[in-house]
Amino acid sequence: MMARLLSTSCPLDIASSSRSYYKPSNQGSISLSSSLSLRISCLPLKRLSIHGKKSQRRCTIYTAAVSTSQEAKTEPGTGSYRSSSEASTPKKVMVIGGDGYCGWATSLHLSNKNYEVAIVDNLVRRLFDHQLGLDSLTPISSIHNRIRRWKSLTGKDIQLYVGDICDFEFLSEAFKSLKPDAVVHFGEQRSAPYSMIDRSRAIFTQQNNVIGTLNVLFAIKEFKGDCHLVKLGTMGEYGTPNIDIEEGYITITHNGRTDTLPYPKQASSFYHLSKVHDSHNIAFTCKAWGIRATDLNQGVVYGLRTDETAMHEELCNRLDYDAVFGTALNRFCVQAAVDHPLTVYGKGGQTRGYLDIRDTVQCVELAIANPAQQGEFRVFNQFTEQFSVNQLATLVTKAGEKLGLQVRTISVPNPRVEAEEHYYNAKHTKLVELGLKPHLLSDSLLDSLLNFAVQYKDRVDTKQIMPSVSWRKIGVKPKTVSA
Amino acid sequence: MMARLLSTSCPLDIASSSRSYYKPSNQGSISLSSSLSLRISCLPLKRLSIHGKKSQRRCTIYTAAVSTSQEAKTEPGTGSYRSSSEASTPKKVMVIGGDGYCGWATSLHLSNKNYEVAIVDNLVRRLFDHQLGLDSLTPISSIHNRIRRWKSLTGKDIQLYVGDICDFEFLSEAFKSLKPDAVVHFGEQRSAPYSMIDRSRAIFTQQNNVIGTLNVLFAIKEFKGDCHLVKLGTMGEYGTPNIDIEEGYITITHNGRTDTLPYPKQASSFYHLSKVHDSHNIAFTCKAWGIRATDLNQGVVYGLRTDETAMHEELCNRLDYDAVFGTALNRFCVQAAVDHPLTVYGKGGQTRGYLDIRDTVQCVELAIANPAQQGEFRVFNQFTEQFSVNQLATLVTKAGEKLGLQVRTISVPNPRVEAEEHYYNAKHTKLVELGLKPHLLSDSLLDSLLNFAVQYKDRVDTKQIMPSVSWRKIGVKPKTVSA
Repeated sequence: MMARLLSTSCPLDIASSSRSYYKPSNQGSISLSSSLSLRISCLPLKRLSIHGKKSQRRCTIYTAAVSTSQEAKTEPGTGSYRSSSEASTPKKVMVIGGDGYCGWATSLHLSNKNYEVAIVDNLVRRLFDHQLGLDSLTPISSIHNRIRRWKSLTGKDIQLYVGDICDFEFLSEAFKSLKPDAVVHFGEQRSAPYSMIDRSRAIFTQQNNVIGTLNVLFAIKEFKGDCHLVKLGTMGEYGTPNIDIEEGYITITHNGRTDTLPYPKQASSFYHLSKVHDSHNIAFTCKAWGIRATDLNQGVVYGLRTDETAMHEELCNRLDYDAVFGTALNRFCVQAAVDHPLTVYGKGGQTRGYLDIRDTVQCVELAIANPAQQGEFRVFNQFTEQFSVNQLATLVTKAGEKLGLQVRTISVPNPRVEAEEHYYNAKHTKLVELGLKPHLLSDSLLDSLLNFAVQYKDRVDTKQIMPSVSWRKIGVKPKTVSA
Repeated sequence: MMARLLSTSCPLDIASSSRSYYKPSNQGSISLSSSLSLRISCLPLKRLSIHGKKSQRRCTIYTAAVSTSQEAKTEPGTGSYRSSSEASTPKKVMVIGGDGYCGWATSLHLSNKNYEVAIVDNLVRRLFDHQLGLDSLTPISSIHNRIRRWKSLTGKDIQLYVGDICDFEFLSEAFKSLKPDAVVHFGEQRSAPYSMIDRSRAIFTQQNNVIGTLNVLFAIKEFKGDCHLVKLGTMGEYGTPNIDIEEGYITITHNGRTDTLPYPKQASSFYHLSKVHDSHNIAFTCKAWGIRATDLNQGVVYGLRTDETAMHEELCNRLDYDAVFGTALNRFCVQAAVDHPLTVYGKGGQTRGYLDIRDTVQCVELAIANPAQQGEFRVFNQFTEQFSVNQLATLVTKAGEKLGLQVRTISVPNPRVEAEEHYYNAKHTKLVELGLKPHLLSDSLLDSLLNFAVQYKDRVDTKQIMPSVSWRKIGVKPKTVSA
């Protein structure tokens, strides 16, 4: 484990690239270039980067340049609203796992919204790719270059602490140094298949995730008791019960008595289970220590572009399409682009909640801006729409046809143990009540995702697409990967 | 971690002690000596040990010598019953944590019932006592001497594997060597206060318990798929909901639909939480891998003597009365014996399930004899009676008066975070349906416990009695203990 504490201060003098990252696609009737140029014209920041001008601190412009649904913020613990421009001292937010897919997009979004952001990451997600022979569809820059580029484009600092939160000595130094008002915790091993590769990865996943979160809770208690923990959970904690899924709690009347209790959990991988364990641990510390926490039970995230990551190629987010880290919709788009049949696992009736990555960053900001009360353990179901795998396959097929792609679908033996036909109705109103304006999955988004897939299709390693990890065949022998 | 594999074969030639361990007490109208001699007269084995005769293998006598409620056993997976005497090949049972309070009593009980028993233990419970400056009320022998003495008294072998189940290399060797038909898993850090001493003990508790159980699950899957896991959980997993507590599952009707789901969990210490995590992990592996498992959600265990541990002083069980490992009733009896006021935490309305240690060993045997089906995750609530802390204090006070003790009770500030007045009604019928004949808490048992306490009162360190661990004050700095 890396225990070294590395705080990077980014110099301002890095010239922006004059090359636009997102090249126009020649395929399809609705091209990426046209939709992008529309957006770019609204973005002064993007223009700055394209023309290679040295950026300056112009917060009001930057804030206005990024469209979000929320015009007002809540002061922590007060319930009163204020506009962004009224904010005097920016809130300090520690983003653990800020180099990952959701973490990077969130870090930039928060920085752009004038939060003081510090990324804490041991960068192990990049190591997983090396070890398993995987790679992001999109080329991504190092975290150091990402942060330097962000500074050069916007004038905004993002601090970087490179280390492992399972190492409490490291974490406590980062905490004492930053004294964050909020911690957003993405810093967990987040792939269900990864946790089912072999015994050592199963153990790693639970140990890393559970102990890391325990350390964060102790750090908050010890060093910054009013810090708001915003923890990424998963909708997978609930499983697929035959009754409606509520947001964290359910009121049960039983033998003539009534109580509101934690919603029963039925997770279906060692990864999902680790999030269930986290939820129970956090709930206890809220009660025993008065920790304030929001558990964001997130659905499956899709999409690549957020307003900030689109500013420059060095800010580009990762996109995973492989069978270990790739999730259903992203993977289907890549399969369609390379003329690989869409791989539906089993019957394809598996239904889950989904959301656009632009809504992930929006939800996290809403949670931070409207924090839980001291002692409150708040659970939000963070997704915007439900789809079955078969519905996703149909949507991708139709969108592919518009781009002139011939999309086929096959059913492959389900490597997981899960219900393939089931009732599913999960509530997701609390974030909407806080102001979430969802980006719904539409043809244009599918087109956009497909366009990226087509743009980078030469980078696709088709050997990584078919499922390689079996829930039933996991063994104790370490599984090595040959190229 | 200790990775060395040590399989002890016990020689037969150790002479039994001719000294009776349980000396008559001079205090009280109903003395320990009279009740003990009554029991001893029924026990040929006890007589053997008292007279120092060399024991021989006479299984039918030994079986008859120990009273249990169950006259019949079920063959695994068949549902058919057979009598003990019909058993041809004894079932092999691995008892993880077999040197501890419940584990030792269970190991002897199972051995006496003609199971082939192997104890797996890293003996870390003894280390905790050294580190914290604690000691059992009763003097206990080393595990090696215990096993040798058992062999010399009964002719029965108990295998011993000394090592840490978190070390999978060790555990897999033990599994491959024994190929157990059942694993009884007591091998966890089992004290709530211990888990709340400081950050490192909190982390140790969850890591040790969760990873150890994961390793056991992987070992069963890999080496002995039909092995029945009998896992010690805790009633504390449920917390104190305002509705009746069911056995593991609850049927919920919600918005017009119905499902039977895992009972919601509200654990209130890092220890109790570790058991919640275990339950979720085990449930998943039953579903995904077809593991057969019984989760025994045990209440608070009291008492010292079981038929087997009473045979000889070297077989004597431990009894903890300190504020870290001592539990309510045992601790109250010791307090009464040394004229220390009974320490009721807060209002004393905290109500829990309790059981005699003679019922612990009976329940575990019932679970083994009537195993879960492959793929079944079965949950039994393992206790026999409910009491509030105030009720226990009253019972101990009355029993003390009979022995001529003046028993006082004080309320001390509650070091825990828990409801002190609450509804509590927990079901516990499944083990009774399997044949459990409870030993209810009666005056005579209280007398017996009190007599032991009086007998050993010179060994009591009164400094260990008052609560020393606060749920709210736990910190990140390692807590050291001075003598």
